[in-house]
Amino acid sequence: MTNLPGFDFFEKLAQIAADTSLPFFRHSLSIDNKDKEGFDPVTIADRKTEIALREFIHQERPDDGILGEEFPTLKGLNDNVWVIDPIDGTRSFITGMPIWGSLVGLMKSGKAVAGMMAQPFTREIYYSCGKGAYLNTLLDGSHRKLAVSDCKTLDKATMFTTAPELFEGESKTRFEKLVKKVRLTRYSSDCYAFAMLACGFVDLVVETGLEPYDIMALIPIVEQAGGVIRQWNGGGAEEAGNIIAASTPELFDAASSILNG
Amino acid sequence: MTNLPGFDFFEKLAQIAADTSLPFFRHSLSIDNKDKEGFDPVTIADRKTEIALREFIHQERPDDGILGEEFPTLKGLNDNVWVIDPIDGTRSFITGMPIWGSLVGLMKSGKAVAGMMAQPFTREIYYSCGKGAYLNTLLDGSHRKLAVSDCKTLDKATMFTTAPELFEGESKTRFEKLVKKVRLTRYSSDCYAFAMLACGFVDLVVETGLEPYDIMALIPIVEQAGGVIRQWNGGGAEEAGNIIAASTPELFDAASSILNG
Repeated sequence: MTNLPGFDFFEKLAQIAADTSLPFFRHSLSIDNKDKEGFDPVTIADRKTEIALREFIHQERPDDGILGEEFPTLKGLNDNVWVIDPIDGTRSFITGMPIWGSLVGLMKSGKAVAGMMAQPFTREIYYSCGKGAYLNTLLDGSHRKLAVSDCKTLDKATMFTTAPELFEGESKTRFEKLVKKVRLTRYSSDCYAFAMLACGFVDLVVETGLEPYDIMALIPIVEQAGGVIRQWNGGGAEEAGNIIAASTPELFDAASSILNG
Repeated sequence: MTNLPGFDFFEKLAQIAADTSLPFFRHSLSIDNKDKEGFDPVTIADRKTEIALREFIHQERPDDGILGEEFPTLKGLNDNVWVIDPIDGTRSFITGMPIWGSLVGLMKSGKAVAGMMAQPFTREIYYSCGKGAYLNTLLDGSHRKLAVSDCKTLDKATMFTTAPELFEGESKTRFEKLVKKVRLTRYSSDCYAFAMLACGFVDLVVETGLEPYDIMALIPIVEQAGGVIRQWNGGGAEEAGNIIAASTPELFDAASSILNG
């Protein structure tokens, strides 16, 4: 099977991720404090979710490879690789904030071609099956095509990043310079910020030190919503590391020139 | 009417807030880009929501005073004052993040005695009617009693604050010292962080420069979940300004002693 996935495939993956992760989200509300010692809900949820997603993908696409955060890579028999981050935003997960996501991307010959970010608590699925990016909200059955903003300049841009502490040395100085140039900076968002960029509510997302599983699923969503997502130095986002996602090429260039020094 | 409100009163307020705010949340997804010029969804949503909440409160409690973010204070005929922040977390609202809230608190003779934080998108209502703090999730009909964590030391504490840029001068230096002492710092949360503290997922919330309407509704929720919420210098949280909310008195003292220098 070499076709791109349809929404029904992502919807099934989102359901699997919800079934395995939600029982552990805000878990301590329903357990005794005594039971919490030595118990790490996010680790268990991460592993259970990745196992369940891997099983479904392998059953449906037995020839495809699978790369995940928690388990060894499964080599495939073709040029398709599924890339999984079962719970992206573990710090949101452990603090009860409903802005983590389950990420599944499809890479074909090294290029991200389809992807999904599902938020099980809010029952949202952001995805691209290769052409266009969409948001399906299961709660109200709504289905919307996503489009980035037309923001071209830093002084009008709203920027997100995971945490200011992640930038070090030269990068820290440059990032702080960027903070001073943009209209608004917000933090602690992880994958959700990329989804909001695809929706047009956020104009710029800057990250450092990402792994391929942190970003692969988000690349097609951002690109198919009309945005630009690449490494700070212009390299392909599939390589991960230092990433800029921007609503327009002009905004990407403006952020890139500051971050590259 | 001098009784404390029941959940039905807060549920009605939450419904009103949802009806007036949600049509403007993620609004640009459904309008033309051209219409966005000079259009500020959050300002309109803020005002419409406050007007609707004021009308309902005034109708049900004609003798009580009302203090809100957007309109002049209504003097009451007794010692009850309702304190309203129609949309707390406007920067989350404009960026599409579902972690803003509609806040309504009741102050009696200057003391916060009941309060609600509603999140219309996730359909959650965190509240205290004076005894105990609870979370009602309308989606699944669940009803949970809230309890803070038993965290007593900074090295085990997860801390939230709205934005590192808000701290200036001496406060900035002290806040940065606190960041180095805690286990994890997260940002961009506004009212939602206080709700997560009441749930036991967050141990410490530190804010600076708050207005009374930012905090009044949250005081009874935090206190009735077993937490401590006061000014940095130990003064009553009703006075707003610089606020620490902590899961235990020991943790409050540890944070307070660093922030007071």
